[in-house]
Amino acid sequence: MRALRWDGTRLVLARNVAEPARRPGDALVRVHLAGICRTDLEITRGYLDFRGTLGHEWIGSVVAADDASLISRRVVGEINLPCGACPTCAAALGRHCTGRRVVGIVGADGAFADLLVLPAANLHLVPDAISDREAVFTEPVAAAYEIVEQLRDVEGARVVVLGDGKLGLLVAQVLGAAGARVRLAGRHATKLARAAHLGIPTGEPEAGADIVVDATGAPDGIARALALVRPRGTVVLKTTIAGRHAVDLAPAVINEVTILGSRCGAFPPALDALAAGRVRVAPLIDAMYPLEAGDRAFAHAATSGTLKVLIEPGCTPSAPRRPTPPRR
Amino acid sequence: MRALRWDGTRLVLARNVAEPARRPGDALVRVHLAGICRTDLEITRGYLDFRGTLGHEWIGSVVAADDASLISRRVVGEINLPCGACPTCAAALGRHCTGRRVVGIVGADGAFADLLVLPAANLHLVPDAISDREAVFTEPVAAAYEIVEQLRDVEGARVVVLGDGKLGLLVAQVLGAAGARVRLAGRHATKLARAAHLGIPTGEPEAGADIVVDATGAPDGIARALALVRPRGTVVLKTTIAGRHAVDLAPAVINEVTILGSRCGAFPPALDALAAGRVRVAPLIDAMYPLEAGDRAFAHAATSGTLKVLIEPGCTPSAPRRPTPPRR
Repeated sequence: MRALRWDGTRLVLARNVAEPARRPGDALVRVHLAGICRTDLEITRGYLDFRGTLGHEWIGSVVAADDASLISRRVVGEINLPCGACPTCAAALGRHCTGRRVVGIVGADGAFADLLVLPAANLHLVPDAISDREAVFTEPVAAAYEIVEQLRDVEGARVVVLGDGKLGLLVAQVLGAAGARVRLAGRHATKLARAAHLGIPTGEPEAGADIVVDATGAPDGIARALALVRPRGTVVLKTTIAGRHAVDLAPAVINEVTILGSRCGAFPPALDALAAGRVRVAPLIDAMYPLEAGDRAFAHAATSGTLKVLIEPGCTPSAPRRPTPPRR
Repeated sequence: MRALRWDGTRLVLARNVAEPARRPGDALVRVHLAGICRTDLEITRGYLDFRGTLGHEWIGSVVAADDASLISRRVVGEINLPCGACPTCAAALGRHCTGRRVVGIVGADGAFADLLVLPAANLHLVPDAISDREAVFTEPVAAAYEIVEQLRDVEGARVVVLGDGKLGLLVAQVLGAAGARVRLAGRHATKLARAAHLGIPTGEPEAGADIVVDATGAPDGIARALALVRPRGTVVLKTTIAGRHAVDLAPAVINEVTILGSRCGAFPPALDALAAGRVRVAPLIDAMYPLEAGDRAFAHAATSGTLKVLIEPGCTPSAPRRPTPPRR
């Protein structure tokens, strides 16, 4: 089979990769579509020192599994592969197991390939109401829903989302759907236009927000968030920024702010929201590339103003396809 | 009257200061004892640009008040003086009012003086069971109880307190009294000996704590805290560190840690704990100085290994008094 692999220096399309071995409990999945995430781009800049097949946002169909009823079903999959044996796993916090592998990120091959293997327990069936081009967003939508899971009650809260990238647009929609009064602040005209198209209120935020979500991916995001949040409010750190950066945390102490780290989320709330149309994702797609054009797909994804670029292993090589207009 | 004032350059004992004006609602208090806090030392290094009489930890007795029943009663007082008119005050968050004054810290004279004026509403009567030398710790004990107030349930939690200064020793006692399993980590042999004397478990902490309180006052405290806390655990920032410092917050995102800023607290839980002997404070006193020796008192307080130095306006000038052995 074919796989788009990071060898530590460059992306390589390997054409004769052995089909991944399926152990008991595993499912073998044919990948329909996979999305390029900011983490993928960061790995190609040296983050996490990963080697192997990239890609952790995907939709596919089951080729082989212990449970025959899964065969041919459309599935998405949670990306953390916990050890299952440590105290963290015993506490049902497998997503935080320190010995975990993570699909396409840490110690496990990912989805920019014809086939992918992972535990059947990680799979979720995709309802017919969700198209492939929507289902491929399940993982980032789940990451956005993680905020709702962590904060519990956001109904009526005044929320500022900092950052007009993919994650910011998803977080703004998810928190809006959960009843928060959201305003998104960004710095890219084309992305803000996309936000407006999605019905997300944008503009310069006022100070005094109950919740500020930093989805900027920039080192100064937290300072902006601390300046906008009210005393005793909450700042959610939604993007990982590698390395040490100068931060003044005194305002967090003086104003008794809660700073909440937020990462992966569970898939069911995301699938429910996508099926019900509460979160619109197809308008975020900028282009779709065949697996053979992986390097061009990555270059496109890294271009300023770009939101989501997808890789379609099943597609034959050709020019990038413009996405068809979104269903809704 | 006399007052120990910071003029922006040096501490000055002013001997002919006008008695502070008492407006309706105010109480005039004769100061018995006042404690030097790290914030006082920082102000003398330029923090907050304060000018005036320092001192915000104190015990005194009422000289004049609208309510005659207060006269001669022993009192302590909350230090925040909110505007009373803004939305934050209306939300009962006067301690976070952006227009507030703070006794001896922001826009209001403090307690290193013969007399102090502040709203009677800020006063709390001191039970007879609490000596002056204990009651003067009400404000920092209240700041320690603020953590219990914010976290709600700490019973059985594995807690690491980083920092063997005054605040660390108080926080360790308060959280221990609230049922947490506390270990205190410090770097000063004499202070750790004091902790052991108070029955606080000390030693190198293991990673995986449910809660880590950073009471180090040092820029690297948060990195140490993030390394010790378990995934989804809580780091409490208890000390303010002025300025920008290099911090890697990625572990907070990856491990979904809650970072909680914590500052002043309400006085009643502190007074209850002091009256019941649940928190022992007298062993923290290193020396007591008369008001005339304020500069020597500050120099002593700034010496490495020192915990609490008190200033006693009622005392006649002489050599520093060693504190008498604690009551318990």
